Amino acid sequence: MSRIDGRAGDQLRPIGIIPGINKFAEGSCLIRCGNTHVLCCASVEDRTPPHVPEGEGWVTAEYSMLPRANRERSKRDIAKLKLSPRSAEIQRLVGRSLRACVDMKKLGERSITVDCDVLQGDGGTRTASVTGGFVALSLALYKLVQDGTIPEMPLIDCVSAVSAGIVNDQLLLDLCYEEDSAAQVDLNCVMTGSGKLVELQGTGEGRAFTIEEQRALVDLCAKGIREIQAIQKAALGG
Amino acid sequence: MSRIDGRAGDQLRPIGIIPGINKFAEGSCLIRCGNTHVLCCASVEDRTPPHVPEGEGWVTAEYSMLPRANRERSKRDIAKLKLSPRSAEIQRLVGRSLRACVDMKKLGERSITVDCDVLQGDGGTRTASVTGGFVALSLALYKLVQDGTIPEMPLIDCVSAVSAGIVNDQLLLDLCYEEDSAAQVDLNCVMTGSGKLVELQGTGEGRAFTIEEQRALVDLCAKGIREIQAIQKAALGG
Amino acid sequence: MSRIDGRAGDQLRPIGIIPGINKFAEGSCLIRCGNTHVLCCASVEDRTPPHVPEGEGWVTAEYSMLPRANRERSKRDIAKLKLSPRSAEIQRLVGRSLRACVDMKKLGERSITVDCDVLQGDGGTRTASVTGGFVALSLALYKLVQDGTIPEMPLIDCVSAVSAGIVNDQLLLDLCYEEDSAAQVDLNCVMTGSGKLVELQGTGEGRAFTIEEQRALVDLCAKGIREIQAIQKAALGG
Amino acid sequence: MSRIDGRAGDQLRPIGIIPGINKFAEGSCLIRCGNTHVLCCASVEDRTPPHVPEGEGWVTAEYSMLPRANRERSKRDIAKLKLSPRSAEIQRLVGRSLRACVDMKKLGERSITVDCDVLQGDGGTRTASVTGGFVALSLALYKLVQDGTIPEMPLIDCVSAVSAGIVNDQLLLDLCYEEDSAAQVDLNCVMTGSGKLVELQGTGEGRAFTIEEQRALVDLCAKGIREIQAIQKAALGG
Amino acid sequence: MSRIDGRAGDQLRPIGIIPGINKFAEGSCLIRCGNTHVLCCASVEDRTPPHVPEGEGWVTAEYSMLPRANRERSKRDIAKLKLSPRSAEIQRLVGRSLRACVDMKKLGERSITVDCDVLQGDGGTRTASVTGGFVALSLALYKLVQDGTIPEMPLIDCVSAVSAGIVNDQLLLDLCYEEDSAAQVDLNCVMTGSGKLVELQGTGEGRAFTIEEQRALVDLCAKGIREIQAIQKAALGG
Amino acid sequence: MSRIDGRAGDQLRPIGIIPGINKFAEGSCLIRCGNTHVLCCASVEDRTPPHVPEGEGWVTAEYSMLPRANRERSKRDIAKLKLSPRSAEIQRLVGRSLRACVDMKKLGERSITVDCDVLQGDGGTRTASVTGGFVALSLALYKLVQDGTIPEMPLIDCVSAVSAGIVNDQLLLDLCYEEDSAAQVDLNCVMTGSGKLVELQGTGEGRAFTIEEQRALVDLCAKGIREIQAIQKAALGG
Repeated sequence: MSRIDGRAGDQLRPIGIIPGINKFAEGSCLIRCGNTHVLCCASVEDRTPPHVPEGEGWVTAEYSMLPRANRERSKRDIAKLKLSPRSAEIQRLVGRSLRACVDMKKLGERSITVDCDVLQGDGGTRTASVTGGFVALSLALYKLVQDGTIPEMPLIDCVSAVSAGIVNDQLLLDLCYEEDSAAQVDLNCVMTGSGKLVELQGTGEGRAFTIEEQRALVDLCAKGIREIQAIQKAALGG
Repeated sequence: MSRIDGRAGDQLRPIGIIPGINKFAEGSCLIRCGNTHVLCCASVEDRTPPHVPEGEGWVTAEYSMLPRANRERSKRDIAKLKLSPRSAEIQRLVGRSLRACVDMKKLGERSITVDCDVLQGDGGTRTASVTGGFVALSLALYKLVQDGTIPEMPLIDCVSAVSAGIVNDQLLLDLCYEEDSAAQVDLNCVMTGSGKLVELQGTGEGRAFTIEEQRALVDLCAKGIREIQAIQKAALGG
Repeated sequence: MSRIDGRAGDQLRPIGIIPGINKFAEGSCLIRCGNTHVLCCASVEDRTPPHVPEGEGWVTAEYSMLPRANRERSKRDIAKLKLSPRSAEIQRLVGRSLRACVDMKKLGERSITVDCDVLQGDGGTRTASVTGGFVALSLALYKLVQDGTIPEMPLIDCVSAVSAGIVNDQLLLDLCYEEDSAAQVDLNCVMTGSGKLVELQGTGEGRAFTIEEQRALVDLCAKGIREIQAIQKAALGG
Repeated sequence: MSRIDGRAGDQLRPIGIIPGINKFAEGSCLIRCGNTHVLCCASVEDRTPPHVPEGEGWVTAEYSMLPRANRERSKRDIAKLKLSPRSAEIQRLVGRSLRACVDMKKLGERSITVDCDVLQGDGGTRTASVTGGFVALSLALYKLVQDGTIPEMPLIDCVSAVSAGIVNDQLLLDLCYEEDSAAQVDLNCVMTGSGKLVELQGTGEGRAFTIEEQRALVDLCAKGIREIQAIQKAALGG
Repeated sequence: MSRIDGRAGDQLRPIGIIPGINKFAEGSCLIRCGNTHVLCCASVEDRTPPHVPEGEGWVTAEYSMLPRANRERSKRDIAKLKLSPRSAEIQRLVGRSLRACVDMKKLGERSITVDCDVLQGDGGTRTASVTGGFVALSLALYKLVQDGTIPEMPLIDCVSAVSAGIVNDQLLLDLCYEEDSAAQVDLNCVMTGSGKLVELQGTGEGRAFTIEEQRALVDLCAKGIREIQAIQKAALGG
Repeated sequence: MSRIDGRAGDQLRPIGIIPGINKFAEGSCLIRCGNTHVLCCASVEDRTPPHVPEGEGWVTAEYSMLPRANRERSKRDIAKLKLSPRSAEIQRLVGRSLRACVDMKKLGERSITVDCDVLQGDGGTRTASVTGGFVALSLALYKLVQDGTIPEMPLIDCVSAVSAGIVNDQLLLDLCYEEDSAAQVDLNCVMTGSGKLVELQGTGEGRAFTIEEQRALVDLCAKGIREIQAIQKAALGG
């Protein structure tokens, strides 16, 4: 049975990454996964939050959707005077994922904030934010090395993310909005270049799922992650 | 190698559940998992939020830690004028988990809010909230049936939750605070009575983890969940 | 005419105080006055707010009700983005009452926050907070002396609190919720061990009251305070 | 021993009330008690809050200090994003005091908000707010009667307020700022025209006080209240 | 055609300025332009915001309307938890206008906040705030010079403000509320003593306006400004 | 003397408008004026705010800068819990400008929100928001007509905006960031297709300016506006 957009079950949506899209940010990209478009900007500041040990750096992320990123306009957070709980959850995930690939001692006493602003959302915004956020972060780190601010690249590994899910009892890779809305199970993986897991979040929204289904979904994600890594690498100049 | 509190690697902390602890709530319990104590109160209201289809019910959760639930006092959310992002993330998890076991049509046009307030936290507060929250919710649903408000129990299944993690490269079930602080990998499972997954969240805080490690952690959780289900059942009167 | 719960007009509800209920707080207790249950935790911090003179300490209180402490669930402060004005008023009263019994120079440059969280409320939560808050505060101060942090106990006096009111033109001690709801006049006293007043708040909610009635209500409170002091003393180990 | 401003111990500060100071409010006055100046405006609206029984009215108060009402400028509430807890406490007191003199059934389904804005504060702002608020409220009620909106005056009684305190162990009426800052005991009374109590708030800020001292302070307030009532009456046209 | 209050088209409303109205502020006045009454208080503090260069001072303004300054009562900002966008816009205008007349190096490292609180509003509150704010600011600066805190007056120039508008296709100076509500075009000018522009804001609320109309409105304002300057000068003692 | 980017004094920066950039919004465009990039999305909703007369429509605007739109990262509004006062001021200007060109009766009982989100800011973001906002609004209105929702285009006129300023005593059109930072005078014009003014805002940030200078700046803007109108027209398909 073919998918709404004609893809095979284990096929990613077309991904495009435009590096350096923002003139001011130390690192930036616009990532497009199908109709999901996220602007990722990495900003370097010469101080760290209080909880960070002396001599070490910090990486954090912020995530937000523009009001008309969705099918219906949603109010801005500031109009409701609270950060959307969904955004809070996602930016914590993106932050943890990005920190997993940085050696904080090599980064030194500075912090990098990666802003992920969804210009248009069609499913998979959190995984696109991790994937694009890694590109923006890498570019900012390159710049710090090229400037001579830090002696060597503090990247330990690369990270990428993708979702898989169960829709009509079929396992599908990289759900678009319509699939996501109808999904019985939705699972997101963040993985390193060597295929290890950094983050794993699975939810049975329509029904519970067996341990075997869970394993198959992770395997499907692992397949997608390998393809995404090649695209990230190309965007970073190989 | 034995654990800080002398447990075997696959051993739960002692769990106690006192049902009906609150005189006013339609359902309530105090759950104690080792030194983690969570007060769970289920409140029934005769209206539903706007997004709920007509004729159906809704179940949601709120989670909060008292200021001195921890080793150090933390400020109240209201003093910072924002819901802690960690609390936001946890209460979304608890809410999804509890909704997974309720037939919303049988519940009818009413909503149940399950408040999970951590009186003392020593690791595993989110999983204790799911486990205790299910007991409070069940008691509130029993009451609705006994009152004649609804004709039959709207419970589809039971849910329970537990964590497992990797500490010093050892797989351990049900991490206490010291273990959690030192964990390389932390994974939480919410499962049904028949051993299916409802929620799965794994994080490599210290290092990435292999797919094999992930599988072993889920298996470890499944073992713990079976024991927790027996304790929930007993608290609900068998 | 007997009261709703069978007490005599000048009789307190049964009071129980469990000291040391919280594993982490420097001082804590659970106080139960009839069906009113308040968790009191005293937390010591090694700094003082800006307005405190150098070399002196500070004692403050925070008060909050859990959402289902009442007959009906109430929204959390954070959901409304404002501290309940009633809570603001009560925590100011509790803070002033507790400061009245501490020698701030002997306490030295540290502050103690006494959190009073109402787990279940059935009338008299503010007076229970003062009475239980004093026990938690005393335990924290004992600990500072035992640790050798401060050379001698900074307690000047003890404080306790109770309410009295006029219901159906009868003077009653220690109003429970039903009595409080029907009260024409409600008066709260905070008193020291030697029977002096620290705080006095009287309100004619249903009708104004004469100066003679006011005097009789204070006398009734003084009687109750003497009994409460014996219970506090016992909880503190005599 | 004479007072800082030369008054006798039981002497009020000069009080002036300018009725009708605001062109738009249904009732208004500027009250000056020494150097304490409060603008009181009563606004009528044709709806009541949800908790008010059908067919009845409601009276409430809001209290605020302008930023430079004090010796030092203080930040506006909105800059701190929270209502000052002291203002919250005071406006609850003013609201209860004013409600005590209105027959809500005669008022009918409308609400009156009495805004008390302190233009300059030199001690006794809460009691000036009650005294001036009563004048503004009365004028608004007269207007409703004159307009034919309500058939008869819904005033049950009048209310006035004043403070007394113990400074250097002397009992003084109507404390000004310097006296208030040095007071060992501070007590506020709200009383009706017939000398009954509506509200009573006493605080031992510097030391506890005996029951005899408390009684003497209330007697002192009662003396002041009688004089204030004459001034209110004159402002209302006798 | 005569105006609602009988004025000629190019005639100001009567203006009164009472300097020194507030006992505590370093400079203050009450300005009345017809029925628009604004209390302006200038407060000096011995520190500057972070963005101010070392050795220089800062001048800022805050603007707010009391709840019953208008024909209908409006909620306080704090009740809505946000500064009114209109107030935000106005206080930025007043701040810029006042800064335009101060030599920040002569002022030295201190800041002056000019609070403009509208007690009664009948059109033209923003221009009255600039005009009155200048008087309050000048008085505070005189005081600093007289105290010997600063060696010479840091005033570069004076500033005054007034509105003009098009109502029923007639050009009118200094619109009152009824005229403002019916205006097709509304234009505000802030000018110096030598007739130069500091701020200019024109809005076509009912229709667009030609460049010629715009020029005529500025000329009309210039005429009014000259008269206002004489009144400011008199209030400042000539 | 040539400008920093080589332009003549009366030359606009290159302007590009991509219509229909957002898949979901009823009307949208990305406008680029030099390095200033603003995403404008118009969203239609089938209800109006309470203040709108029955049978009429409403148009409003929201404006925000992404955190890294600037040379330095700025905090999000939600992190500071308040809408930036500058954004509040700008979105009021954009809203008024767009309303000036719509016949609200022809629009009917619906409202259109135009979100202007600055992706990159290099001076002139408010004028780009008006110019781009008009394109997004027009596209949304076309869609309503094409859908048959409304019978005829409710556009009365077109609106465009541009800035001019005085830098080093030279009059320049369309200031970029560096020019804006150094400007002595900054003036923004919003004009209709027939060259009439809708909004005019001029500020002497570095010095006051003469009436003659003001007139010359408006003339300069009028010249720029004519060129911008041609670009808007082309983006809307001629």
